[in-house]
Amino acid sequence: MNKVGIIGYGITPFTKEDQKIENVLLRSVKELFKTNPEINKNELDAVLVSTNNNSKYLSPILSELAGIQPKISHSIESLCNSGTNSIVSAYSYIASGLADMVMISGGERYDSPGQILQWDNSRGEYKHPIFWASIFAKSYKREYSISDGDLAFVSVKNHKQAKENPNAMSHKTYSVGDVLNSKKLTDDLRLLDCSRPCTGGASIILGSEEKVKQLSKCPVWITGIGQKTISAGFTKNISLSSMESTKLAGEAAMKMSQKEIKNIDVAEIHDAFSVCEPMALESLGFSNYGKGINMVKELHSTDNFKINPRGGLIGTGHPLGATGIAQTIEITQQLQSNAGNRQTDNPDVGLIHNMSAAATSSTVLVLEK
Amino acid sequence: MNKVGIIGYGITPFTKEDQKIENVLLRSVKELFKTNPEINKNELDAVLVSTNNNSKYLSPILSELAGIQPKISHSIESLCNSGTNSIVSAYSYIASGLADMVMISGGERYDSPGQILQWDNSRGEYKHPIFWASIFAKSYKREYSISDGDLAFVSVKNHKQAKENPNAMSHKTYSVGDVLNSKKLTDDLRLLDCSRPCTGGASIILGSEEKVKQLSKCPVWITGIGQKTISAGFTKNISLSSMESTKLAGEAAMKMSQKEIKNIDVAEIHDAFSVCEPMALESLGFSNYGKGINMVKELHSTDNFKINPRGGLIGTGHPLGATGIAQTIEITQQLQSNAGNRQTDNPDVGLIHNMSAAATSSTVLVLEK
Repeated sequence: MNKVGIIGYGITPFTKEDQKIENVLLRSVKELFKTNPEINKNELDAVLVSTNNNSKYLSPILSELAGIQPKISHSIESLCNSGTNSIVSAYSYIASGLADMVMISGGERYDSPGQILQWDNSRGEYKHPIFWASIFAKSYKREYSISDGDLAFVSVKNHKQAKENPNAMSHKTYSVGDVLNSKKLTDDLRLLDCSRPCTGGASIILGSEEKVKQLSKCPVWITGIGQKTISAGFTKNISLSSMESTKLAGEAAMKMSQKEIKNIDVAEIHDAFSVCEPMALESLGFSNYGKGINMVKELHSTDNFKINPRGGLIGTGHPLGATGIAQTIEITQQLQSNAGNRQTDNPDVGLIHNMSAAATSSTVLVLEK
Repeated sequence: MNKVGIIGYGITPFTKEDQKIENVLLRSVKELFKTNPEINKNELDAVLVSTNNNSKYLSPILSELAGIQPKISHSIESLCNSGTNSIVSAYSYIASGLADMVMISGGERYDSPGQILQWDNSRGEYKHPIFWASIFAKSYKREYSISDGDLAFVSVKNHKQAKENPNAMSHKTYSVGDVLNSKKLTDDLRLLDCSRPCTGGASIILGSEEKVKQLSKCPVWITGIGQKTISAGFTKNISLSSMESTKLAGEAAMKMSQKEIKNIDVAEIHDAFSVCEPMALESLGFSNYGKGINMVKELHSTDNFKINPRGGLIGTGHPLGATGIAQTIEITQQLQSNAGNRQTDNPDVGLIHNMSAAATSSTVLVLEK
């Protein structure tokens, strides 16, 4: 299999702006080419668009707007992990030899149709993701004797870290009390426990070994890939306080990269809701079951940005189709020691965890410099 | 690059039925497993859904309904060539070694949102595909002195061939007079010049060399792939009487397969409208420019099913996301000498041409037994 790495990236601020999806995508592509003038658009073999937007033919539209005539062009959708699905697809085009350079552009509007889970009749009328997150929170707290105040540390930490991310939707910081006093949305979740929909775009170019060595001053390689889909319906999950698809995807990514979880220096974790961060940390093996929140608290108290340095989904905002790309850009910046005030201590190996719909499906990527 | 071939397929009748998209997809998957009981669902590494439907997360939904837990799962959209985009994506997963077996399920409802071209402001209010097809027809007829009666042979031939396809939406045959007397929709196109939207599904499983040899009694291999996107907007086309993206995709597919167009024994051509068939035949090199309609007439007069044996889009119906898969299934059946009354004379090499939006993008595949 050919080696695949990252050549360049561009990202927009995450906002509540009412922009057309084409403009959201184009804006991050323009940013990419502005910061990577050495990339020749004529050498892009594929343009993949990652989005939940209902507009059709977005890749040819974006390509035309950006002055690209790719061979391969289409949109990819898998709700919240559309971004990493697109990255794995791009990886396979390059690893197979069908392409040398692939651009992926992820984008979403704040009113994305992917935020309402229409298909799962087992949920009855409870179609908003907060309802599965509430069931997770109730089950997780009960099983491991975790309090609302414990879970609040996820939001406190990630908002603190987002303060150092110029593209985050908000730069406010919050105390545990602020989280607990924020608007109660369900029995188990408050407003500040939740990531917020937003408008945002993130684009990245992957390339073959030859292209990466030619075009990147500081190569970062994708060395591990794991993906797993358990079901579409939440009620098919085996456990309500762990993430089976995340566990299996993590194991596969570790195996492919020949790393162990203790080798991971920095990670992006899909904290769609506060409870997701400790659950994912546990299912990935960063901590024992029931102890993920202790890890969160310790990282917070030592100002260690190891987990979700850009502020996670809670701190940064969650433009569905862009999130997996933005996570991958963050880990790339970390490995390139280019993450500003968010920089962790000289990391060599990073991990991305991106999931959809109550972890019914997950992607885990391992990146190395 | 690992060799990639076809393991099995399933297809539904194309109809005007008002079915849920999930059921359309599931129906062809059930057909696939009914006719290929030796395929182990647990060995499917990926499930890709090809559709223009606005429903999200369809691959995990289909997987759950079908009892599959894939690693890779997402939807792929590129209007009318979503199907072959998905096939090329599946090819790359297998050729790269990331997957050994990939199922692609294409499906569409008769009221697909992909039938209205919302994005192209250069069209003004003319958002239905018939308007670009009319401009093509006017330009093509003028440039090569072709009459409406000449173009009508495409519809006559393809309806005749669709009569032998049990899954075609209609089994009626028509004379040139019938076509010319059918309802005039624009100055240059009549009802019987057009493919019709319909509800239909088509699923196919691709596999690695090892899996194909193990599971297929009559292996068919994908030996050539070509794709090209020129633009999204019709007015960016260089010529209005030829198809630049088809020409480039065809050349790339021929080069990869080390074949010439004269080696092609049977082909599926994207006849969304009658004028598209001779234009595509010319752009692919099957005939000289302006002479494609002569080829159509000769094939018709000799009852030669070489081009669009299943009846093309005009004869069979056009469920957007399923069309490219259905075309690939037809060529597979032809190469396996399993095409019933549509069977061409012992073909060794087949071609699939699938395009979107006035040939602003095209895919060409070469298949060999």
